[in-house]
Amino acid sequence: MFHVDLNSDVGESFGNLTYGRDEENMEILTSANIACGFHSGDPSVMKKTVKRAAEKGIAIGAHPSFPDLVGFGRRNMNVDPEEAYDFMLYQMGALDAFCRTMGTKMAHVALHGALSGMCKTNEPLARAVIAAIKKYNPELIFPGMPGLMSYEIAKEMGLRLACIVPIDLDFRKDGQSIIERHKTARDPKVVARKALKLVTTGKLETVDGVDKEIKVDMLLFHGDGATATEVIREVKNSMLEAKVVIEPFPNFV
Amino acid sequence: MFHVDLNSDVGESFGNLTYGRDEENMEILTSANIACGFHSGDPSVMKKTVKRAAEKGIAIGAHPSFPDLVGFGRRNMNVDPEEAYDFMLYQMGALDAFCRTMGTKMAHVALHGALSGMCKTNEPLARAVIAAIKKYNPELIFPGMPGLMSYEIAKEMGLRLACIVPIDLDFRKDGQSIIERHKTARDPKVVARKALKLVTTGKLETVDGVDKEIKVDMLLFHGDGATATEVIREVKNSMLEAKVVIEPFPNFV
Amino acid sequence: MFHVDLNSDVGESFGNLTYGRDEENMEILTSANIACGFHSGDPSVMKKTVKRAAEKGIAIGAHPSFPDLVGFGRRNMNVDPEEAYDFMLYQMGALDAFCRTMGTKMAHVALHGALSGMCKTNEPLARAVIAAIKKYNPELIFPGMPGLMSYEIAKEMGLRLACIVPIDLDFRKDGQSIIERHKTARDPKVVARKALKLVTTGKLETVDGVDKEIKVDMLLFHGDGATATEVIREVKNSMLEAKVVIEPFPNFV
Amino acid sequence: MFHVDLNSDVGESFGNLTYGRDEENMEILTSANIACGFHSGDPSVMKKTVKRAAEKGIAIGAHPSFPDLVGFGRRNMNVDPEEAYDFMLYQMGALDAFCRTMGTKMAHVALHGALSGMCKTNEPLARAVIAAIKKYNPELIFPGMPGLMSYEIAKEMGLRLACIVPIDLDFRKDGQSIIERHKTARDPKVVARKALKLVTTGKLETVDGVDKEIKVDMLLFHGDGATATEVIREVKNSMLEAKVVIEPFPNFV
Repeated sequence: MFHVDLNSDVGESFGNLTYGRDEENMEILTSANIACGFHSGDPSVMKKTVKRAAEKGIAIGAHPSFPDLVGFGRRNMNVDPEEAYDFMLYQMGALDAFCRTMGTKMAHVALHGALSGMCKTNEPLARAVIAAIKKYNPELIFPGMPGLMSYEIAKEMGLRLACIVPIDLDFRKDGQSIIERHKTARDPKVVARKALKLVTTGKLETVDGVDKEIKVDMLLFHGDGATATEVIREVKNSMLEAKVVIEPFPNFV
Repeated sequence: MFHVDLNSDVGESFGNLTYGRDEENMEILTSANIACGFHSGDPSVMKKTVKRAAEKGIAIGAHPSFPDLVGFGRRNMNVDPEEAYDFMLYQMGALDAFCRTMGTKMAHVALHGALSGMCKTNEPLARAVIAAIKKYNPELIFPGMPGLMSYEIAKEMGLRLACIVPIDLDFRKDGQSIIERHKTARDPKVVARKALKLVTTGKLETVDGVDKEIKVDMLLFHGDGATATEVIREVKNSMLEAKVVIEPFPNFV
Repeated sequence: MFHVDLNSDVGESFGNLTYGRDEENMEILTSANIACGFHSGDPSVMKKTVKRAAEKGIAIGAHPSFPDLVGFGRRNMNVDPEEAYDFMLYQMGALDAFCRTMGTKMAHVALHGALSGMCKTNEPLARAVIAAIKKYNPELIFPGMPGLMSYEIAKEMGLRLACIVPIDLDFRKDGQSIIERHKTARDPKVVARKALKLVTTGKLETVDGVDKEIKVDMLLFHGDGATATEVIREVKNSMLEAKVVIEPFPNFV
Repeated sequence: MFHVDLNSDVGESFGNLTYGRDEENMEILTSANIACGFHSGDPSVMKKTVKRAAEKGIAIGAHPSFPDLVGFGRRNMNVDPEEAYDFMLYQMGALDAFCRTMGTKMAHVALHGALSGMCKTNEPLARAVIAAIKKYNPELIFPGMPGLMSYEIAKEMGLRLACIVPIDLDFRKDGQSIIERHKTARDPKVVARKALKLVTTGKLETVDGVDKEIKVDMLLFHGDGATATEVIREVKNSMLEAKVVIEPFPNFV
């Protein structure tokens, strides 16, 4: 029997500006990464999002970022490791306040955008960031991809891990995803077929024509594509048809 | 022959977050108030919006605000008049840089949200704000409603004026509009009928059942209602059918 | 035997800009209110300040504010009570992250500037703000002045209380302090004499020539006066000479 | 006869936080680079600083930065060239509003911190940034060092140039200055001797023991060193003794 978690970034609205279709997506997701105010998400958005996640039984994760509202945290910034450590604590603590006061808890920490990207190549930064997670709460799960620097450091430091694959992106045969500045609309059926193959056979299709072996726990969807909700829904349906159990990843990792 | 200008706030997107349907609306509008970064609008959004306005022949206005991104400039803030003067200059200069480098010019200044609201009752604030406009460029036009404090001060200081009516709101018989925290969707036909009556007869319908006399130059539409674009389009069509000339207000005020 | 706590706002530096003489003052203080990033204080400043406070045995409090960096949180803002609740949780959680990871704990919450001021007259706001403190951690102590709305609501809600007096300000006979936009330099000896009288006799001198009865626990010093450090030092010395025990207020309230 | 301009960054205070000793330094400086709100400097600080500069006859320059308040603009950020162009226009326009309304004008644009640093190696960025200056006002002067990418691009684009040397830093024989994260206090007499030699002989001392030939127009001082004001004063005195004419660089470049 196969298990999979459906994950996405949520709570990325800010003030009067709405981002993504959280309400619809959170009817389907089993885990969610909630923005913490540095790239988007304000305290009121955070509270509403935590509340909705708690009500739906969605595993809640912090989604910390570099401080860059206008760049949506997608720009590399030359932040000192120690300062990055401080940024992590600040954001985890802020989100946790909403979790704790709503009787739920933070299950994981998924790095956002450029912070996530830089932690794949900048070792001092990755060590500081992972150390902050561990120090804040050693029970927190770190979703990542085996082989990437941040994942391997989290493993070395003894954090609980989960394997996450951004299934609505394309991949190269080395397992690297091809980042898009602006998400292209994806064909839900194509993504659903690729997702089901990955979950049931452990094979990830790449643009290089060869499959990469990977044991996935979480499928990550980007909420800002034009067809994002349709993609999530189609993946869910294809999983249900194939009797794959969809549930929050902390249940089975 | 009647003339009218169709006006809306635009350029209120920020970073990766989109606000309103500027692209569609700017096909119809004849003047636009462009956010300057304090309540929304970042430099890149400002440049794109100024460029589009210039290409479409839309009269360009600055839309300055209190510094309150998370509150979208809709919260009263106890800002000193002198500091408000400084905020005005900063924002007008910033927007003007885009106008000047694109070979166009800033025609007017329309105050945003709480700044606009407070200038209707706080005289020292209103005087400082209007003084900043006059000092920056005495040719700038100030859209307002006769009788309101900010309008009367602008008149007293010798600024060129235009009469603007937020036609997609409801009014009381004293001419005060009823502000909505979240815009309700309006019936385009209802607004169009009310707008045509106002433009062609000088009578503004109120919720109190009596009409208020007012000679309108600009019809202001709020871009964040669910039917905003449909409302603007319907108003335009009803004006065209009635042979009302729709053109940028600086042509006729 | 008399007890008193010496308290001040600290951690109000931001990035490369320094505010106040924290290093010197924290040699003397027994409790401190640490800025949480909304009016000043960035994550790195917060961490350093919590660390220093923990090392010196200083009782640590959150010092939350309206979101207003450029106004230093000293401007009234028309924030909805529910949004204020969210701002409170965000800031308390953020500061707490530094406390918890450094093996210390947050003892109290002292409201900053305009947020503190508005909670003395705006009941819905005060109720929301106090409810956030209680919800976050019912053990937190609320420093205030008996008779003020925020203090009385905290009392009604069952929070632990402490009586704090901003001893370097002037008072009217109704117990209201006279707020200065820019702190004037105070004569250390004058403040010390007034402080000692208050602590040992329960009488607070006012500018109206009559004393007000008040049982004080904490003396609050403003860190931004030109003689702030000298004032704190002189008060400490006069207390020691008079055998008043200076210690963190959670020990004795 | 020799001419030299004494230059520094000013207006880097923000809200209630003060940075540097502008008041004292502006008694001596002949040109100044004024922060524009992105790394520090708020509209009110900008106005006061422009006013003081105008009164003292100091040549006024914009000092634009990446948007990074908490990092004081000293962190490399991966900003798209086109977005950097937009950031430049926004900041130049904002500062210019204060200059124009005070009857003075902006003479030059000196890039701040990481933006300046990245324009020495990132050609697309440097081209976009210089193009923004040229587009905004082709009369603006660009202070830089011959040989550096940004300077050479400004030259190629036809901007008026000035040679600026940060005389309170150390240099390598290739002409690169050695950036300090936190400025060390400098011995005023040592800097003054080095400055006079540079101005009168065109020889810049380096830490490699050899002099580099350079014809300097402007001496740049960093305002945040502990002895910054003393250094500026000593340099001024040694220039006066040597009959070097100290005047705003636009007079002689």
